Amino acid sequence: MGRNKMEKPNTDQRGHRTVNVRFDARGLVPAVVQDEDTGQVLMVAWMNEEALRLTQETGQAHFWSRSRQELWHKGATSGNFMNVRQIWVDCDADTLLLKVDPAGPACHTGERSCFYRRVA
Amino acid sequence: MGRNKMEKPNTDQRGHRTVNVRFDARGLVPAVVQDEDTGQVLMVAWMNEEALRLTQETGQAHFWSRSRQELWHKGATSGNFMNVRQIWVDCDADTLLLKVDPAGPACHTGERSCFYRRVA
Repeated sequence: MGRNKMEKPNTDQRGHRTVNVRFDARGLVPAVVQDEDTGQVLMVAWMNEEALRLTQETGQAHFWSRSRQELWHKGATSGNFMNVRQIWVDCDADTLLLKVDPAGPACHTGERSCFYRRVA
Repeated sequence: MGRNKMEKPNTDQRGHRTVNVRFDARGLVPAVVQDEDTGQVLMVAWMNEEALRLTQETGQAHFWSRSRQELWHKGATSGNFMNVRQIWVDCDADTLLLKVDPAGPACHTGERSCFYRRVA
């Protein structure tokens, strides 16, 4: 383990990168949520440091609700939890991509994805 | 056409929704860029009203660069233009999803996607 760490100083023992996520002035980053199986983009929500930590600890997506100004355990009221399989970070470390196994529709309208309206 | 319009008052003649995009206080919305063929999420960038208009007019992705504070025709310097096939809007109309045919890597690092680092 120690040797592996020295060879790959920026990865943990599972080969995942250790990256300092760059939260914005409000302490938030956008998180794109993608269905791991189908590739469908389901929604975009915001995470603060605590939401990211809870997501990693529980394996279920947590966000920061900007409208309600509170932590939001996705599915806590609807039952449509999102089981997070992978978390990726972009090149400038200010956006996350969550690959998930959703327990139900992502959207509060009942649509599978929040992106159900094509405009062009 | 007129009849169709009356039956579907919120769609144009191609069946696309007419939605008022809700730009934030800075006049911006995040845009998720997805490879139309592979489903890979390539990047997230920001659009203002002009970037969205230019994208629709030219068929190539334009963004607003927050770091440079200027309009950014993706690929203008690298040649890696993004041909936009579809634009979708989310349920609360404050996030866009662009399905594109990319002419080359999305990321300035040369990676196909900006999300090339898995963190969990």
